[in-house]
Amino acid sequence: MIEGSPVPHEPPIYRRIADRLRQAILSGELRDGDRLPGENALMSEYGIARATARQALAVLINEGVAVPKRGSGVYVRQFRPIRRHGSRRLAREQWGAGRAIWDSDVSGRPYTVDELLIAREPVAEDVGRVLDCDEVWVRRRRYSVDGRPVQLAASHFPAALVEGTPVTTPDTGAGGVYARLRDLGHAPVHFTEEVRARMPAPEEAARLRLPAGTPVIEVCRTAFAAGGAAVELNKMIMDAASYVLQYDFDA
Amino acid sequence: MIEGSPVPHEPPIYRRIADRLRQAILSGELRDGDRLPGENALMSEYGIARATARQALAVLINEGVAVPKRGSGVYVRQFRPIRRHGSRRLAREQWGAGRAIWDSDVSGRPYTVDELLIAREPVAEDVGRVLDCDEVWVRRRRYSVDGRPVQLAASHFPAALVEGTPVTTPDTGAGGVYARLRDLGHAPVHFTEEVRARMPAPEEAARLRLPAGTPVIEVCRTAFAAGGAAVELNKMIMDAASYVLQYDFDA
Repeated sequence: MIEGSPVPHEPPIYRRIADRLRQAILSGELRDGDRLPGENALMSEYGIARATARQALAVLINEGVAVPKRGSGVYVRQFRPIRRHGSRRLAREQWGAGRAIWDSDVSGRPYTVDELLIAREPVAEDVGRVLDCDEVWVRRRRYSVDGRPVQLAASHFPAALVEGTPVTTPDTGAGGVYARLRDLGHAPVHFTEEVRARMPAPEEAARLRLPAGTPVIEVCRTAFAAGGAAVELNKMIMDAASYVLQYDFDA
Repeated sequence: MIEGSPVPHEPPIYRRIADRLRQAILSGELRDGDRLPGENALMSEYGIARATARQALAVLINEGVAVPKRGSGVYVRQFRPIRRHGSRRLAREQWGAGRAIWDSDVSGRPYTVDELLIAREPVAEDVGRVLDCDEVWVRRRRYSVDGRPVQLAASHFPAALVEGTPVTTPDTGAGGVYARLRDLGHAPVHFTEEVRARMPAPEEAARLRLPAGTPVIEVCRTAFAAGGAAVELNKMIMDAASYVLQYDFDA
């Protein structure tokens, strides 16, 4: 344990190189799709070993701002991350006024639902524990922003609750599924989000077109109606390089 | 787009095998450190190809509940994840009464701070943008639970704000740094948490003893005093396999 007096804190050389390259990306000097300096260029510029040059590039690859292409080098993979506001975006004012929740995420950037599959299914065990039912209606979507798939989402509803309503159809109407749950007398009043991170399953990596080594963030959100009944469980799988999740709360 | 009528939803065989093995782990039939059935055993039991057996095991490895040991097989890496409550754990009642925030995370499991480094430093650019100062006091800790490192944390405070106070010493006293900020007239009233996931930097992987292929969750928490001044920025790096982050909020 070291403590107390000032300690100069100099990061290792590969970190400082990564910092400079990152700065070049953030400042716009290097842009999306540009090739980063290769290992040989870094070795001669900084007088470092190949392993050190590789480490510097690995930092940026790990952070998701660069991507290696086999036999060709490392390229900028710039993508302004989507800032997803946990509490603010779900505020009653948001969906209560007929707006889509997603709108608040992309700050004007166009997004598309490019896959939509709606089905009635037997409930999976983990979902059944939360929703307390045997059958569910599931809305599976893939969302893309700027032409890039960023999120897979699967909203589950107790089948008996939403049978025959617009929740089971492609167009759920103004305010979306939460406004429809409100129409049914089951307006969500409370949300719980559980957040994990892990490596993607192969089909998740394929559907999100993830470069190797990119983790996903998994968010399971449960919506509760007054009285405490869970009325929706939404499993979301997000490209970790595309998202910053923000949560605000008071002390 | 497929929609409307019931669609039977049968996951692929490797998923179903992974589900069974996971169930055996969760039920306690297979325990921490036990060897999972190998590729050969799965091939003969289920009549599947080696690639399929490998995929099934990869699912569990990716989820962090199993870990491969070179030349020896795949073993259960069970660890009851730490449920970290975002809003509840930071409630004023918690630290206001002299309790440590961390206590609410581990539900009685022993945790230790096994690294503590306290230093006064020039502020890094990203932290300086938030804390609006040139020098910071930083408290760097490593936390372990059940003998396993799970989190690296670096709390930054504007140097001028905390100079000469217990915030700059190992023992911060009852209620910790937030109670001391309160004593100074800068009690936190609002928190923002930004959550990302990425692969670890090499030194993070080493300090957290992460198996290859395990991502980290990065949480940057900013504490704001009344009036809106940022009084602390805490950068936390967590073993993604060890954590579930939970956030609760009302509609």
